[in-house]
Amino acid sequence: MPATLVECVPNFSEGRDPAKIDAIVEAVRSAGATVLDRSADHDHHRSVITFAAPADIAGEAAFRAVRQAVSILDLRSHSGVHPRIGAADVVPFVPVHGVTMEDCVRIARQTGRRIWEELGVPVYLYEAAAVRPECRNLAHIRRGDVPEPDFGGPTHHPSAGAVVVGARKFLIAFNVNLKTLDVTIARRIARAVRFSSGGLPHVKAMGVFLASRNLAQVSMNLTDFEATPIHVVLEEVRRLAAHHGVAIAGTEVIGLVPRKALEMVAAWYLQLESFRPDMVLETRLEG
Amino acid sequence: MPATLVECVPNFSEGRDPAKIDAIVEAVRSAGATVLDRSADHDHHRSVITFAAPADIAGEAAFRAVRQAVSILDLRSHSGVHPRIGAADVVPFVPVHGVTMEDCVRIARQTGRRIWEELGVPVYLYEAAAVRPECRNLAHIRRGDVPEPDFGGPTHHPSAGAVVVGARKFLIAFNVNLKTLDVTIARRIARAVRFSSGGLPHVKAMGVFLASRNLAQVSMNLTDFEATPIHVVLEEVRRLAAHHGVAIAGTEVIGLVPRKALEMVAAWYLQLESFRPDMVLETRLEG
Repeated sequence: MPATLVECVPNFSEGRDPAKIDAIVEAVRSAGATVLDRSADHDHHRSVITFAAPADIAGEAAFRAVRQAVSILDLRSHSGVHPRIGAADVVPFVPVHGVTMEDCVRIARQTGRRIWEELGVPVYLYEAAAVRPECRNLAHIRRGDVPEPDFGGPTHHPSAGAVVVGARKFLIAFNVNLKTLDVTIARRIARAVRFSSGGLPHVKAMGVFLASRNLAQVSMNLTDFEATPIHVVLEEVRRLAAHHGVAIAGTEVIGLVPRKALEMVAAWYLQLESFRPDMVLETRLEG
Repeated sequence: MPATLVECVPNFSEGRDPAKIDAIVEAVRSAGATVLDRSADHDHHRSVITFAAPADIAGEAAFRAVRQAVSILDLRSHSGVHPRIGAADVVPFVPVHGVTMEDCVRIARQTGRRIWEELGVPVYLYEAAAVRPECRNLAHIRRGDVPEPDFGGPTHHPSAGAVVVGARKFLIAFNVNLKTLDVTIARRIARAVRFSSGGLPHVKAMGVFLASRNLAQVSMNLTDFEATPIHVVLEEVRRLAAHHGVAIAGTEVIGLVPRKALEMVAAWYLQLESFRPDMVLETRLEG
């Protein structure tokens, strides 16, 4: 593993033409980044590429992907159910290993400036990279609450719109399946556990019914697993479910999970008095 | 990390002269192996070196360490409380990554043959590398129940004695601290949990009193964490302790723990419905 590692999860307004998505993936690879995942949704007409790269390459890889998207996508002929403001829509940089959030903020701002200066596409800076507090929340930018971009504008690019570039922590998608068919219980638990309605910090949650499995699920995003670890969320959901007389059938992690998040879980349940990552054989060997 | 990785934990009958232990450590390093840990005990007059190496180097590194020990140690002037049969006493090879137990058995037998043929020191093969069933258990060899070595003998080398070479699984040293001063409770739990008195497979256990911390401890060796994982052992100790009205104060892992052992713990307590190692971001990047 390289000494520094940044994850980047750019979203593009193209979910139907595999050749166009291939071209964007190739642009990422051409900078030397490692593509970890790609997914496309026809109804949303949207694709998400997950890549990782050393800190000195991550910005260049994201820039090349945006440049490719701007040259081949045209928002004027675009229709999809997902809200969007650009051909390259959202570009978040995530510190993974050997880099700080400040490093990712710097990468985001440099990349945003280049997108405006070299491609002529206006850029909003969001989350940790935001310069203005009203830009922290992506939803506010999408709603048009922030009329002026941070770079360029005020009018958007005719075919490519604008790009929202920023830095955020690693997001873990964590679902808890309940031993009940009653989705109202999952919704009540979601309301109690999510921060926006008074629950745990850094937790977003909704209750859904999984028809294919015939059970209710609390579907969550954990936006800061170091501040609110997975086990804290699971034990809170377990407590709330027990209050409704419902047991936990199982859980799922969707996508990737950082090693540290699992080590925190293991150390907590084992009640380890002093856990250090270099107690792990493979980590000691790498160190 | 290299494609294959073997751990080796040789024990030497020298715990007092750091220069001699340095020389043995240097012999390990000269073959290209990575020394992870070294410890020496004055009363036992014994040292333990933990090293890791690719499969094609592990045997050579162990051979050089034994050769160095044979040339500078003399059992005739040795006194220590730990039972021993050789200057280089026990040499176990442990599969860690990309190698099977059969690979380690082959390395152990090749290395054992070289020790006899090139150094003239007789060798017993033990545990998974044993050719005779009565040699599986190290204690039987130490007690003299096995008069004939597998290579050389029957008389031992005058100054270097004999070497016990073998292959075994990774050993996790796991201690559970109890919220009680009563060591008899720790001893009862140890008796109930260890395999030799009818407890869990692949668990060795004893109850001890920690004067410095004023609490009783169940001190265990887990000799096959895949067959009997850490969480199974902890939950059994918790159940037995609760029967005595005692809670668990905390736990300790002494030395190193393989990554897989912690991933098994995290996946079990989280009730993850489908855990795969490549869901871990860093593992995906290495793969």
